[in-house]
Amino acid sequence: MVLFPDRRSSDEENLGVDWVIRYQFDGADTSAAIEEFRTLVRDLDEAGLRTQVRHGTGSSLLVFVNAPRERLGHEIFKARVKDWLDGVSDIRPVGDSQTVIDGDTEAEELRSVHHLVTGRKDDGGAEVTANRGRWKNITACFPLHSPNANRGLFRRWSRIRILEAEDLDELRALFGEKVALYFAFGQCYGFFLAGAAVCATLSWMYYGPYSIGLSVISSLWCIIFVEYWKVQQTDLAIRWSSRGVGETKANRIHNVWDKGPEGHETTLRTKEIYQAEKQLLRQLPQFVFAILASVVIGAFVLVTFTVELLISEVYKGPFKAFLDFLPTISLALSLPTINSILNKAATRLTDYENYPSEAQYDAARAQKSFLSRFITYFLPLLLTAFIYVPFGDRIGPSLDALHITWLSNRVPRHTDSSHLQQQVISFVLMTVMLQFRERNFLLRGAQVSFMKYLHYLPDRPTDILHPYRRSDSSSLLLIDHPEESGFLSRVRDESEASVHDVQDNLLEICVQFGYLALFGAAWPLVPLVFLFLHWTSFRSELFKTIMERQRPAPLRTDTIGPSLRILEFVARLGCLSTAAIVHLYRRDVRQVELWSLLLTIFVTEQFYYVARYFIRTVLQKIGSETIHREEARRDAVQRRYMETFSEEAADLCRVYKPRVRFNEIMDVVIETNRRDSTAASSEYARPSEDETEDGNEPEIPHKISRRTNTDLLRDAEKSTRFWSWHQAPQETIEAGIKLIEAISVASRLGRSVPSNGQVTPKKAD
Amino acid sequence: MVLFPDRRSSDEENLGVDWVIRYQFDGADTSAAIEEFRTLVRDLDEAGLRTQVRHGTGSSLLVFVNAPRERLGHEIFKARVKDWLDGVSDIRPVGDSQTVIDGDTEAEELRSVHHLVTGRKDDGGAEVTANRGRWKNITACFPLHSPNANRGLFRRWSRIRILEAEDLDELRALFGEKVALYFAFGQCYGFFLAGAAVCATLSWMYYGPYSIGLSVISSLWCIIFVEYWKVQQTDLAIRWSSRGVGETKANRIHNVWDKGPEGHETTLRTKEIYQAEKQLLRQLPQFVFAILASVVIGAFVLVTFTVELLISEVYKGPFKAFLDFLPTISLALSLPTINSILNKAATRLTDYENYPSEAQYDAARAQKSFLSRFITYFLPLLLTAFIYVPFGDRIGPSLDALHITWLSNRVPRHTDSSHLQQQVISFVLMTVMLQFRERNFLLRGAQVSFMKYLHYLPDRPTDILHPYRRSDSSSLLLIDHPEESGFLSRVRDESEASVHDVQDNLLEICVQFGYLALFGAAWPLVPLVFLFLHWTSFRSELFKTIMERQRPAPLRTDTIGPSLRILEFVARLGCLSTAAIVHLYRRDVRQVELWSLLLTIFVTEQFYYVARYFIRTVLQKIGSETIHREEARRDAVQRRYMETFSEEAADLCRVYKPRVRFNEIMDVVIETNRRDSTAASSEYARPSEDETEDGNEPEIPHKISRRTNTDLLRDAEKSTRFWSWHQAPQETIEAGIKLIEAISVASRLGRSVPSNGQVTPKKAD
Repeated sequence: MVLFPDRRSSDEENLGVDWVIRYQFDGADTSAAIEEFRTLVRDLDEAGLRTQVRHGTGSSLLVFVNAPRERLGHEIFKARVKDWLDGVSDIRPVGDSQTVIDGDTEAEELRSVHHLVTGRKDDGGAEVTANRGRWKNITACFPLHSPNANRGLFRRWSRIRILEAEDLDELRALFGEKVALYFAFGQCYGFFLAGAAVCATLSWMYYGPYSIGLSVISSLWCIIFVEYWKVQQTDLAIRWSSRGVGETKANRIHNVWDKGPEGHETTLRTKEIYQAEKQLLRQLPQFVFAILASVVIGAFVLVTFTVELLISEVYKGPFKAFLDFLPTISLALSLPTINSILNKAATRLTDYENYPSEAQYDAARAQKSFLSRFITYFLPLLLTAFIYVPFGDRIGPSLDALHITWLSNRVPRHTDSSHLQQQVISFVLMTVMLQFRERNFLLRGAQVSFMKYLHYLPDRPTDILHPYRRSDSSSLLLIDHPEESGFLSRVRDESEASVHDVQDNLLEICVQFGYLALFGAAWPLVPLVFLFLHWTSFRSELFKTIMERQRPAPLRTDTIGPSLRILEFVARLGCLSTAAIVHLYRRDVRQVELWSLLLTIFVTEQFYYVARYFIRTVLQKIGSETIHREEARRDAVQRRYMETFSEEAADLCRVYKPRVRFNEIMDVVIETNRRDSTAASSEYARPSEDETEDGNEPEIPHKISRRTNTDLLRDAEKSTRFWSWHQAPQETIEAGIKLIEAISVASRLGRSVPSNGQVTPKKAD
Repeated sequence: MVLFPDRRSSDEENLGVDWVIRYQFDGADTSAAIEEFRTLVRDLDEAGLRTQVRHGTGSSLLVFVNAPRERLGHEIFKARVKDWLDGVSDIRPVGDSQTVIDGDTEAEELRSVHHLVTGRKDDGGAEVTANRGRWKNITACFPLHSPNANRGLFRRWSRIRILEAEDLDELRALFGEKVALYFAFGQCYGFFLAGAAVCATLSWMYYGPYSIGLSVISSLWCIIFVEYWKVQQTDLAIRWSSRGVGETKANRIHNVWDKGPEGHETTLRTKEIYQAEKQLLRQLPQFVFAILASVVIGAFVLVTFTVELLISEVYKGPFKAFLDFLPTISLALSLPTINSILNKAATRLTDYENYPSEAQYDAARAQKSFLSRFITYFLPLLLTAFIYVPFGDRIGPSLDALHITWLSNRVPRHTDSSHLQQQVISFVLMTVMLQFRERNFLLRGAQVSFMKYLHYLPDRPTDILHPYRRSDSSSLLLIDHPEESGFLSRVRDESEASVHDVQDNLLEICVQFGYLALFGAAWPLVPLVFLFLHWTSFRSELFKTIMERQRPAPLRTDTIGPSLRILEFVARLGCLSTAAIVHLYRRDVRQVELWSLLLTIFVTEQFYYVARYFIRTVLQKIGSETIHREEARRDAVQRRYMETFSEEAADLCRVYKPRVRFNEIMDVVIETNRRDSTAASSEYARPSEDETEDGNEPEIPHKISRRTNTDLLRDAEKSTRFWSWHQAPQETIEAGIKLIEAISVASRLGRSVPSNGQVTPKKAD
């Protein structure tokens, strides 16, 4: 759904709501729901958070969470202290248990709210996480989008083609390092694809597939991409002072312990308690899983090949050209389903493996997810390339032995090199279609707009959409206050929006990269196709982040983590696979001698290691501007400190941060920010040319949306009124109970609960 | 030479001398020597160091350096601050430009002296380094051994077989982390060898060479060793709080800059100024070097083989059995010479590459040194194993083409698998002999003792040893003061002693490991032979460190650095080589098909990566006790800090350090230290059983050498007298000039300068 463009009251802000929890309950068992809801509000209250409750869509309540200024400010301070203790930041923040500070960015503040809501109770959190553990009924737990900031981003992104460093800073300031790093990586990958596409297409035009020159160049290009990104990643981590964040191990909440977390003598909480040996044992089943999955997919592929053989050889009727391809196409189309099944199994396995920290859990899950993708998408192609086509000759005799002579006589026809190419083409196109359908914003945007349009038609059958009009008195509760209705309807939309999992997108890129690295030699247009897909979907990803998806919890990271290891692995495998494919298919497959193939592979592998070593050395030595600047800065600060040993010099150890803020009025801040960042960067580097050009331009559109002081005052009043409904947690609980009862009465009367409460008062007017 | 055991005045301490510089001059050009000496003393004075001068052996002066208490204490404080700034230590040392603190260990204090003497001038040092740059005439620059501490170590080591953690702590306290880490690694390598020797010998007895089972086990064992050492290394780095030291980049002094170090706008000193691109270019010649060296050695090996062929086939005279082996043996014996030539070339190349930091320089030099060793020792064996023996059949026909028919007819006799084994045996034994001769202490110790004995004979011709007896008045200067003579003679011995390069020993271990990993399959007794060599030479290494060698500058490190990468590389190559050798030589070499060999290698390579991944994962997960304890400590401290935010809690962030001190009276300190470390460790872990047993034992021998207060007072007086000879640097310079003149007069009179001044006054009595 599109959350923002055609909303009328989009000017309104979030009424002081920091976080929203959507509590879904079973309409039939009201008492259990009431009990659970009561626990929820109490937990939040114990963590020092203020709450309000409104009804959501369906049988759900929306709990609005506000972190009071003192609580939040101290939490931010504590997070800074933790950063210092973990070595992420150089300087000890001065303060005590009363210290209250501002976050540098909205993301930092929201991260602290996130920690208060989802963090462990003995860390001061409320332990409320969506869809996990005892809070299975909480279906969403998210911060609200900031409409004004999003509008600013929308305007900016509509004008630019390439994300500058400042754009990434803005993304980071709003959505956290994880999301910003994903987009930085996506853009870097786009450039890599563009380079690969140009080379490969030119080579395809002049030399056709299986070109040795292209293979060498593209293998090197893959290595360069991976190593270059490593440097970029460090660059960004320094820029956002999140370097070393990956090392700090935030404990996972839903971790099974051997002993209670309190009972350990060393006061070490989870690491030691859940023994390493035990955990290693728990990791064994994944191998069984991988082998089983490979066997099943392998068998599936074999069946498809046999069917294809049967059809192409035996069937002589109409649509033969189409039917010949049917098995491969149906194989390709069934793979996503298989993959999603494997993915679920992988997640379950990872849950079972019970990692002590979130980072380890993510890494293990990503690894398994990629493994399942690898088995689904690449195994069939690898089987075709290295077993089916080269050994096709020998399949005949072995079928002979099984007395299927009529089949065996016809087999050799298939062992031509075009078969691999065809299969690569169909797999790549299948992947493109899938990813395009999933990602492409324009397509789905149009669809959703049409739905919205239907929704707003004046002559729609009102009964279906507004069952409460004829409801009894308790249902009056379910009618929104006119002042809040716009806001609430937006929150309801956001609460039902899809959640953005950066890791999934990264894995999709890994799969693309895999096709390109492994089978690019067979069909050199692979990078061109992916380039098309990437540049369309990458932009729509950007817009979807602000317009269609739940705002992600602004997590920090200094690396794309598991994906990086996957990319390295794929680049290595790609070298081998490319060499083998070129060697096999360059001439007649049947005339290739095994020893020469193996020699090629062996030499290629050594070549890969040597090349990677040199590329890495060179790239890391040259480094990036930011890395050099950081080193210069540290050097300068150290010298200054060593001269004076003063507190002030010690404070300078603080890493240079590009400060970006999106407050009530986004556009003003953008200007200040630009000024700030120019001023800040001039200390260390000259501002780039195009930046200054851009810097003046955005003022015109921003002025349009600039809001007056009266607007601000009105907003503040609205916010106060919103939070004054229930003062104490007990009031929230009572209000919630009333809502639960009202909703369950409504559903018992057989009426559907409105999907959008905002419409009701409008009709009532 | 043996510095310590049969010395009579070994009780005396170092008279407050922290550092000794040996200035060697050309007796002919006195004025240049005087000028240079003047600069030397002034430089030292500018760095705030006190100096005394005495004459050394030959045409040399000994400059004694003392760092005044305030200067040294502040330097130690500054080093701590730098550690904090570099992230090595967690806590900011509180203080200002006047702060003076004690070092935790003698090594820490000496490290600061080292920094004062050799450090860059703008860091407050004197830039005096031995054998480099403008100080080519300084032939030694070293701290003095601490006789009492050394005696304690000697006693302890005479009783123990295995170095405990506390022994390593003591080594670290006296000689710094680099030396201690080397011995820790050596011991770890010893255990690895023992395991390998047991397996291999058993397998050899039952299955002979080329056993598949043994190959797999020993390949895995090699991987386990490398990965286990990584964990151990981290463990020790945490124990000695030197973790992260490798990252801090101390600038190398003799680095050529593009611009002067002052002129750079970012105040960054060396890194940026010497451009990365330029440096990369400078690294290109090493490839030419490697290729040239390989070709030369390859040609050399080819000639040897041909000669061997000629002798074995053509020669039928007496001593045939011996002469058959002559070429291989002479090849083996000539290799050390070749290696030392290559090594010199490698050092020159590394100098040319002009690295900005000491660590990078060391790594590059080690890499090149190993490359030259690899080419010398392993290339001939690899050529034999994979070219000469398997393709021996084809050498015949190709010689035919060259019309050397009489030779080609006889070639095939040589292509048997025993040839490889013979060569491996001779190479391994050659290496063992070489390393044994170089390292074995007992052998050389006996030799030196004999020399000493001769020296002390009463009826030796005195004229040769004491030319100054008949000298003129200026030579009176060259007679030592009786009170100092013992001390000075010890210093003269030390100044001529060999310098211990840990890196060289590590590379020797790498070579041993290489033989074992690459060719262990051909002759399974390799580990047994090396085990013998290692356990004899390792102990003598220990004793040599305190008795025969110059005390090393106590440098810090948290890793064995380049050697670790070499070990990893060798382990990987070893897997491939072992698999190939077993595959080739298990049956008749000529019947092996190329494709099956290549397939074996390919599969082995994949096996290596998988095995390494799992071994690494398991070992790192299990980790070590120290690592777990460190994590628990950090966790506990963080929790405490987060509760109080107090300065006291912040101070607890200090890493747990086992404090070891060797002061004037070593034995007392050992007791305190033992008590300390037990107390300290009981906080976090129970002390191990054997540790407490050991803890009480050493008291008895220590009491014997305990010195009375009178002794101490006398030492202090002696020390004061020693330093009162020259008060101002000008006096030192004048004294030095007089000595230079006296020595050059003596040498002009055609008399040799006494090698040991101490003897003169004894005769004069």
